Parts: sequence; C-alpha cells; structure tokens
Amino acid sequence: MPDTTDSAPPMLDTDIAARLRRTDDGLIAAVVREHGTGEVLMLAWMDDEALRRTLATGHATYWSRSRNEYWVKGETSGHRQYVRAAALDCDGDALLLTVEQVGPACHTGTHSCFTDELTVRPGVPA
Amino acid sequence: MPDTTDSAPPMLDTDIAARLRRTDDGLIAAVVREHGTGEVLMLAWMDDEALRRTLATGHATYWSRSRNEYWVKGETSGHRQYVRAAALDCDGDALLLTVEQVGPACHTGTHSCFTDELTVRPGVPA
Repeated sequence: MPDTTDSAPPMLDTDIAARLRRTDDGLIAAVVREHGTGEVLMLAWMDDEALRRTLATGHATYWSRSRNEYWVKGETSGHRQYVRAAALDCDGDALLLTVEQVGPACHTGTHSCFTDELTVRPGVPA
Repeated sequence: MPDTTDSAPPMLDTDIAARLRRTDDGLIAAVVREHGTGEVLMLAWMDDEALRRTLATGHATYWSRSRNEYWVKGETSGHRQYVRAAALDCDGDALLLTVEQVGPACHTGTHSCFTDELTVRPGVPA
C-alpha cells in the first residue's frame, strides 16, 4: 500500500496553527522590521497559508485584503523581503518578521510605509 | 441661543477618520515601538475612539478584542506607555506608536510581547 503522506497538501504546522488568534476573517497582523536598522517598515496580513509559505520559503508572503489573493512581497516590484527571523506575540494575533529589505518597502516609494505623522499630545509621566 | 458645539461628544478628527481602513470589526492595528531603542514591543488594536483618546491624552489607549472594552495601557499594572509620536501607514490600516515604556510591555513580564520564535527557512537572495 503506497504511503500517501507526501501527496497531502502542505499545511501550517498544527502546533503553530493552534497558537494563532485570528481576526474574524482569519488573519493575523504581520509587523515587518528591517534587519540591521530595526526600522519598522510596514504591516501586512497573513492567513495560515501565507504564514506557512513565509516560513517554508523565507520569502515574505502575505494575504491581500484588497485583492483577495496571496502576494509574495517584491514579486513584481523586485522589492523583496528575505526573512531572517519570525516571532509570534504572546496572544498569537501578531507576527514580527525581521527581513532584509530590497529597495523601498512601500509601494509609494518610501523606505517605510509609516510616513503619515499625526499630531499627538505628549503624555507627561506622572 | 446657546452654542451647543462644545457639548457635543468628542469625535476623532474627520480628516484622520477618513484615512482609516478598518477591519470588519472596525479596528486598525497599532504597532508599538520603544522610544530610544526602537524595539518593537507589542501590537494592539484601536477603533476610532481609542485613537482619539490616544492622540488627545498621549496615553496609549486600545480596544480589547477579548474584553470588548477600552484599556489605557498600564492603568492597572503601572506599565504605562507615554506616546511620543504616532504615524499612519500608506493605506490607513496600521498605526505606528513610539512610546516611553514604563516597565515591561508584555503582561507576561517580558519587555516585548514577541518572544515566541518560529523556525524559518532563510530566504536566499537570488
């Protein structure tokens, strides 16, 4: 009898999947920071399959909420993200990716996506 | 006739509100990094009112998805976050807060919430 294990569709490791706490639409937030500088570059979204692909390939892969499809960061722009490390947070709803960023992370051409500064009243330590 | 403008409930600035792109349950992701070190400490969630309170007070205020209530970070633990800067990302679904963190950011007692390291295959630049 043939062993069919290898022909099963790949799935995210069940231990990892059990630790995720997803949004109503099945996603976790992926915070992306730059290896070396530590700069926060962007935030994107992952479902279980995007996380599986990211961990298996080392190429940051997300779920596009606007296009409803997977995207490998930089596949068309060339602005790839080579993953150096990945860590879940304490309640499993967010992932911190540390990446080597090729070119700008933002589709607008800026290095980081977080460029829209808001005015905030400084909190004064009591 | 009295001017009743000032008695209206405070609302998030309409220009800012118009730039937000919320999850189905009305939230944006708030990435929190530490002033000075740049370390990514945690990710939490905000609705419009949590963002309004954060910007108005300088005390990081979130929406708890598990308790369905607002929480001022550190109000009970003392591990407050004094906000130094806030920036939206290019598509308005995430906020980067830069904070002075008092004590550990994580309720588990660690400085950062991102302590659950996952094994990732390093992406090799082509």
